[in-house]
Amino acid sequence: MQMAAGARPISEVGEFGLIEGISHILDSSRVRSSGVVLGVGDDTALWQPRPGRQVAITVDTLVEVVHFRHDWIDAESLGHRALAVNLSDLAAMGARPRVAVVSLGLRGNESDRWVYDLYRGMVALGQRWHTRVIGGDIVSAPAAATISVTAHGETRPGRILRRDQAQPQDIVAVTGPLGLAAAGVRILSAGTLRVDGAPAMLRAHRAPSPRVLHGLLLAAAGVRSAIDLSDGLLGDLPKLCAASNLSAQIEEDALPVPRSVRWGFADWQELALRGGEDFELLFCASPETFERVQQFFRRFRLAPPIAIGTLSRPKDDVPKLTMRCTDQRRIELETGAYDHFKPRDAPR
Amino acid sequence: MQMAAGARPISEVGEFGLIEGISHILDSSRVRSSGVVLGVGDDTALWQPRPGRQVAITVDTLVEVVHFRHDWIDAESLGHRALAVNLSDLAAMGARPRVAVVSLGLRGNESDRWVYDLYRGMVALGQRWHTRVIGGDIVSAPAAATISVTAHGETRPGRILRRDQAQPQDIVAVTGPLGLAAAGVRILSAGTLRVDGAPAMLRAHRAPSPRVLHGLLLAAAGVRSAIDLSDGLLGDLPKLCAASNLSAQIEEDALPVPRSVRWGFADWQELALRGGEDFELLFCASPETFERVQQFFRRFRLAPPIAIGTLSRPKDDVPKLTMRCTDQRRIELETGAYDHFKPRDAPR
Repeated sequence: MQMAAGARPISEVGEFGLIEGISHILDSSRVRSSGVVLGVGDDTALWQPRPGRQVAITVDTLVEVVHFRHDWIDAESLGHRALAVNLSDLAAMGARPRVAVVSLGLRGNESDRWVYDLYRGMVALGQRWHTRVIGGDIVSAPAAATISVTAHGETRPGRILRRDQAQPQDIVAVTGPLGLAAAGVRILSAGTLRVDGAPAMLRAHRAPSPRVLHGLLLAAAGVRSAIDLSDGLLGDLPKLCAASNLSAQIEEDALPVPRSVRWGFADWQELALRGGEDFELLFCASPETFERVQQFFRRFRLAPPIAIGTLSRPKDDVPKLTMRCTDQRRIELETGAYDHFKPRDAPR
Repeated sequence: MQMAAGARPISEVGEFGLIEGISHILDSSRVRSSGVVLGVGDDTALWQPRPGRQVAITVDTLVEVVHFRHDWIDAESLGHRALAVNLSDLAAMGARPRVAVVSLGLRGNESDRWVYDLYRGMVALGQRWHTRVIGGDIVSAPAAATISVTAHGETRPGRILRRDQAQPQDIVAVTGPLGLAAAGVRILSAGTLRVDGAPAMLRAHRAPSPRVLHGLLLAAAGVRSAIDLSDGLLGDLPKLCAASNLSAQIEEDALPVPRSVRWGFADWQELALRGGEDFELLFCASPETFERVQQFFRRFRLAPPIAIGTLSRPKDDVPKLTMRCTDQRRIELETGAYDHFKPRDAPR
């Protein structure tokens, strides 16, 4: 790794120097407190959830080479991303993000600046959603850097977006475009930027926007089933269908694939359906509830949700995923999420 | 890694097969619920803390080669250890452990059996302290396996063991022997078992007992300041002294170093003072409170706490750590915790 001017190797700063620097960044951030009793500096952090709330807990880990490469992503974006993938899980439960702890494994050749920028990226995203980093640990991981974030949100009992609560005849909808993040990865692995719309694709990969407000509005509008699209539509929709024991039919024409992705990549459908890491929410709602969601989104000036299909009771009790193509043919889709131990496309 | 009979490589079982197997282990464990609303299987886990309680949150990560080696520790002990180091942090706050989430990074050459045994080790320890593993993720980490556990406990406001609440004239005490775990590491790195008491030393290293009940009793007895001994007495006591702005004087004669450690290792004092990972609690209490702690420990049939020194206001406002040696000399101790980026002794 290159050392920027003014940056020092962490082998010189040391673990405790780093912790001091990080504490300073966390303390000086202006994130509103959200019940934080005790932050960094003791054996544990302390947080007081609001009365009657349930705590949604999620953890996601990014591993060097597997999930990120230093030459593909800067430290601030990486910090943003590490928190964003967790906030996306909270959003998919309809939870309000509150506090996070971070476990950082460092190779030892990083600079202090890199570590601080990583935290700055997390703090900046946290600020947007009133989420504070209140603790963590730093360990040596000489073989590959890792960033593991555990995020905590609050939910109201009964107002939760679960995978197993979808109903027959529900509309299947998504909160935004599909395929941009995968296109970003493709651009980086090909090493070319000569694709129209490349900046948006790279941004979608490097610094995804967790759909926190969308999740809260869905829950408030009466939606009870959702999942976030981290493994791609054909990875995640089947999980929801299996949990709810329902089949889904998708309309090819309805898929919100940006023109830049369609024009830039011959296999754009693969990127949109299986690419993954779009971190949009997929949700299921009755037509009346969907109508209310549209109203809520409009009121908050969010882009409208996109209906992409419907759910139905499965024949023979085996949930299936079919797609009606542009030429009106109906095809059965081969489902399957990315399996970390049967890799396809690195890094992701 | 060797494959045991009946075990399958995880590249064959796949991520989702593994998750299914792990869910089965977690579901079939008889851990009492402690407010768990939703376990593994959705975007997040859901947990309802009891009314008015604060949530203590801590995360600790073990990295292959740095913190463990497959030929030094079996999977079940490793699972125990990964949870134990976190429960120890909760104990050091006086918190009651409740739920944990686990992020597992696997090289890909592990067997499914190894992964399941790891979880069995966690579940077995969790059962002892009514702590449930309610979620997590599994990622590929081809360069080195990692286990990151985030544990959550409940505390009552005001009944917390903090580092910055020690008082002048407090007695400094520990809950158990020092140096056993470091002796265990020494035995493993030397590859010899010809030390009296080796089994206890190896057990102390592989499967430390978090002092959860001790922590709860300390808090109930009125103690307000403690820390767990993960970095060794000379690593952790200075942190507490710095946070409370106090000096400490230790009595060499009072140090609870087992005879097996004294007799087995010429540098036994180094092991006891700097070895670390004993995971005993170090606490500070007025003589009256210390008396009450002794009563509480007796009532619960715990070994009595061991007073090892006293605290005082620092001269010139600079906290110092001194030791009165057996020959009555007073020496100033060189403090300092293990720094992950300036390593001394691997693995730990």
